[in-house]
Amino acid sequence: MRTQVAIVGAGPSGLLLGQLLAKAGIDAVIVERQTPDYVLGRIRAGVLEQVTIDLMEEAGVSQRMHAEGLVHEGFDMLYQGQRKRVDLAKWTDGKKVMVYGQTEVTRDLMDARSAAGLTTIYEASNVQVHDFDSKNPRVTYDKDGQSHEIQCDFIAGCDGFHGVCRASAPRNAIKEFEKVYPFGWLGLLSDTPPVHHELIYVNSPRGFALCSQRSQTRSRYYLQVPLTDKIEEWTDEAFWQELKLRLDPEAAANLVTGPSIEKSIAPLRSFVTEPLRFGRMFLAGDAGHIVPPTGAKGLNLAATDVKYLFDGLVEYYKDGSEAGIDRYSELALARIWRAERFSWWFTQLMHRFPEDSEISSKFQNAELDYLMNSEAGLTSIAENYVGLPLDFSRNGLLKSRS
Amino acid sequence: MRTQVAIVGAGPSGLLLGQLLAKAGIDAVIVERQTPDYVLGRIRAGVLEQVTIDLMEEAGVSQRMHAEGLVHEGFDMLYQGQRKRVDLAKWTDGKKVMVYGQTEVTRDLMDARSAAGLTTIYEASNVQVHDFDSKNPRVTYDKDGQSHEIQCDFIAGCDGFHGVCRASAPRNAIKEFEKVYPFGWLGLLSDTPPVHHELIYVNSPRGFALCSQRSQTRSRYYLQVPLTDKIEEWTDEAFWQELKLRLDPEAAANLVTGPSIEKSIAPLRSFVTEPLRFGRMFLAGDAGHIVPPTGAKGLNLAATDVKYLFDGLVEYYKDGSEAGIDRYSELALARIWRAERFSWWFTQLMHRFPEDSEISSKFQNAELDYLMNSEAGLTSIAENYVGLPLDFSRNGLLKSRS
Repeated sequence: MRTQVAIVGAGPSGLLLGQLLAKAGIDAVIVERQTPDYVLGRIRAGVLEQVTIDLMEEAGVSQRMHAEGLVHEGFDMLYQGQRKRVDLAKWTDGKKVMVYGQTEVTRDLMDARSAAGLTTIYEASNVQVHDFDSKNPRVTYDKDGQSHEIQCDFIAGCDGFHGVCRASAPRNAIKEFEKVYPFGWLGLLSDTPPVHHELIYVNSPRGFALCSQRSQTRSRYYLQVPLTDKIEEWTDEAFWQELKLRLDPEAAANLVTGPSIEKSIAPLRSFVTEPLRFGRMFLAGDAGHIVPPTGAKGLNLAATDVKYLFDGLVEYYKDGSEAGIDRYSELALARIWRAERFSWWFTQLMHRFPEDSEISSKFQNAELDYLMNSEAGLTSIAENYVGLPLDFSRNGLLKSRS
Repeated sequence: MRTQVAIVGAGPSGLLLGQLLAKAGIDAVIVERQTPDYVLGRIRAGVLEQVTIDLMEEAGVSQRMHAEGLVHEGFDMLYQGQRKRVDLAKWTDGKKVMVYGQTEVTRDLMDARSAAGLTTIYEASNVQVHDFDSKNPRVTYDKDGQSHEIQCDFIAGCDGFHGVCRASAPRNAIKEFEKVYPFGWLGLLSDTPPVHHELIYVNSPRGFALCSQRSQTRSRYYLQVPLTDKIEEWTDEAFWQELKLRLDPEAAANLVTGPSIEKSIAPLRSFVTEPLRFGRMFLAGDAGHIVPPTGAKGLNLAATDVKYLFDGLVEYYKDGSEAGIDRYSELALARIWRAERFSWWFTQLMHRFPEDSEISSKFQNAELDYLMNSEAGLTSIAENYVGLPLDFSRNGLLKSRS
C-alpha cells in the first residue's frame, strides 16, 4: 500500500491529523494496534481550549461538540476552607474553555473518518517504522496472519507514550526529560449531576481533589492518593466519604453520590522528548510528551502539535517547501514546555507532597492567597488555563500596554 | 530604670521603632549586646521598598537617603544567555525601589538617635526578658560589672534570629516553620562602579548570580556556591572569573573588577515564627522571620513589622485601646507569609538545586520565558518586588477592573 502520510495511532492526535489532511486533499492511512472500542474506552481529560475547538471546526467535526459541550467561563479554587472563582472570561478578554470528554472527541473523529470512507487499520499487530531517515519511509504490521507494508512520504507518530515511534528513534539523537510525582489520581466517573456548574480545584490538608464533569448528568471526580494505594481497596463509599472531607461544607452538602461507572488510579508524570522530528518521522501528542493532568493540558497540547504538523505538511504538499516541517519540532516544543511548566506548577501548588515540611503548605496557601487576590495573579492562571496563544513565541502577551 | 517600651536589639528594626516612638512621644530604651561599630559592620541588603522609604520619612531620617540613595525603576533578568528588563514603574503604575545599603539606614537611625539624646545601651551582656506574661515585664542585663533592670509596659524583640527574645517565648506557645536551602551566597563588596546602572539577577547553568550595588562607586556581587565551599578558597580573582562566566558577554565585558572590601558566604533560609506576640512581648524583623535574600525582602519586612507594631503601640498609648497590639501578630504574619512566598519562589526560579534533574532547569527557563513575555507575569514579579500594599489583606490588588 502507498500513501502520503502514514499515521501510527488512532487516538485523538492521529484521528485529528487524518481528518485535517483529508480535508486538505492529502492522503493518509492510520494504523492502530487496538480495537475502536478499546480506544474509546480510555477515559481521559475533558476540557478543551479554544485552539482545540477551532481545530475541531477546521476538521469539520464540531457539530455535536457545539450541541453537547458545556462552555465554562471560569472555575473555582478551594483552599484554606474558602472557595474563590477564577473568572476566565474576565481576565482573558472573553476566552473560555469547553467541557467535552476526550472520548466524545475521539468518537466524533472516528465517525467522520468512517463517513468519509478513509482507511483506518485497527488491530494491527507488530507495527514497525522503517527508513524514516530516507525519502522512502515504511510502516509494516501484521494483520489476519499476514504481513503488510505501507510506503509513504512521512510517518506521523501519534501512538502515545508507550508507542513504537519514539522507541524507534535513534538513541543518540533523542533526549528525554522526566519527572515522576510521588502520588496518583484516583478517578471516579458516575452518572450523577456535577456538584457545581463549574470545576472545583481543591487544595486541602488531606490532599488535592478535583470536581470535574463530562455533562450535566455525568460527573468526574478525582482524589490525590498515595501510589501504594490499590484500586480494589477504594470502594465507591470510601471515595465519596473522602471527597466530602476535602470539600467545603456547601459543596459537601450538594454532592450527589452514586455508583461508579469507572474507577482507576493514574500516576502523574511530566515527560518531554527532544526533538520531535527524526528525518521523515514526527512525534505528536503523548508520543512526545506527557503532562500531569492538573490543568487539563494533555489533549490540548496534542491538538496543537497536530496543528503545527498539519500546517507544515500542507506547506510541503502545496508549496513544495520544507520550511514548515523543518520548524515543526521547535515550534511545538516551545508551546509544549510552556504547558509542561504550567501543569507542573499547578500540580505543585495544589498537591501535598510526602517529602514536604509544614512550611511548604504555608507557601502554597500564601501563593494561592496572593494569586486569587491580585489581577496579575488571576490573569496569569487564567491565560495559561485557557491556553497561551499559538503565536506566543513571537508576540508573547504584551500587546495592550507595549 | 523605667520606660514604656524596652527594645531589645539596636539593628534597623529596633532603631526604627525607637525613632518612631520618640517622634510620637512614647518613651523607649534600646539594649544591644554589641558595639555600634559591630552593628554597622554587618553587610546586608540594600534595596528599599516605597513603604520603607515612607517609614524613614515618618521617622524623620530620610534626608541623606534621598540625597544619596539611587532610585531604580527596574532591573534585569538574565536567563538562557539573554537579558530582559522588568520595568517596575511601568507594571506597578509608577512604583520604584531605592538602592541604599542597610548599613546606611542603620547609620542614619543611629545618628538621629544620638542627636535626640535617646538612650541606647550598647555592650549589654546577659540580656534577659522577664514577666512578659504580666503587665510588668522587665529586661535585665549586665554592664560594666553590674546588673541592671529596665521595667517597662512592653518588650519589643528586635534582636535578630539568634536573639534572646524568641528563645524566651514559652515552647508550647510557639510554632516555627523552616526551610534551609542547599547552597549559599558568596558576596563580594568592592569600590568599583557597578557593571550596570540597575541590578542584574542571573539564572545561569553555573548557578545564580546577582549584580547589585550600594552606590555609583560601590558594587555588591553575589554568586551561588555550595555550602561546603570555604571563604578562604575564594580569591578575589577566582570570584571575578566565575562571575564573568555567569554573565552575558556584554555585562562580562563591562565588568570592572577590583580588590574586595568584604567577602563572605551566607547560608539561605526561610523561617517564620508564629505567633509574633507573647503577652507583652512582640517579635519584629529577623527575630521572627528570615527570608532568603533573593528579592531583598528582609529589611523591608522588618520595617513593616515595625510599622504595624508602632501603630498598635500608638493606639494603646493615645486611645487606650489594645485593638492594635492585639492585631499585630496576625497583620504582620499575613504580610510576612506573602513575602516569604515571593522570596522562596524567586529563589527556586533562579538557583540550581543539587537534587534537580535536567527537567527542573527546563521548567525554570519555561517559567522565565512565560513571565518575561506576559503582562500578567511581569506585573506579578514587579508588584511583589516593589512590595505588596500594606492593605493587601483587605483589598488585594483587584482595584482597576473589579
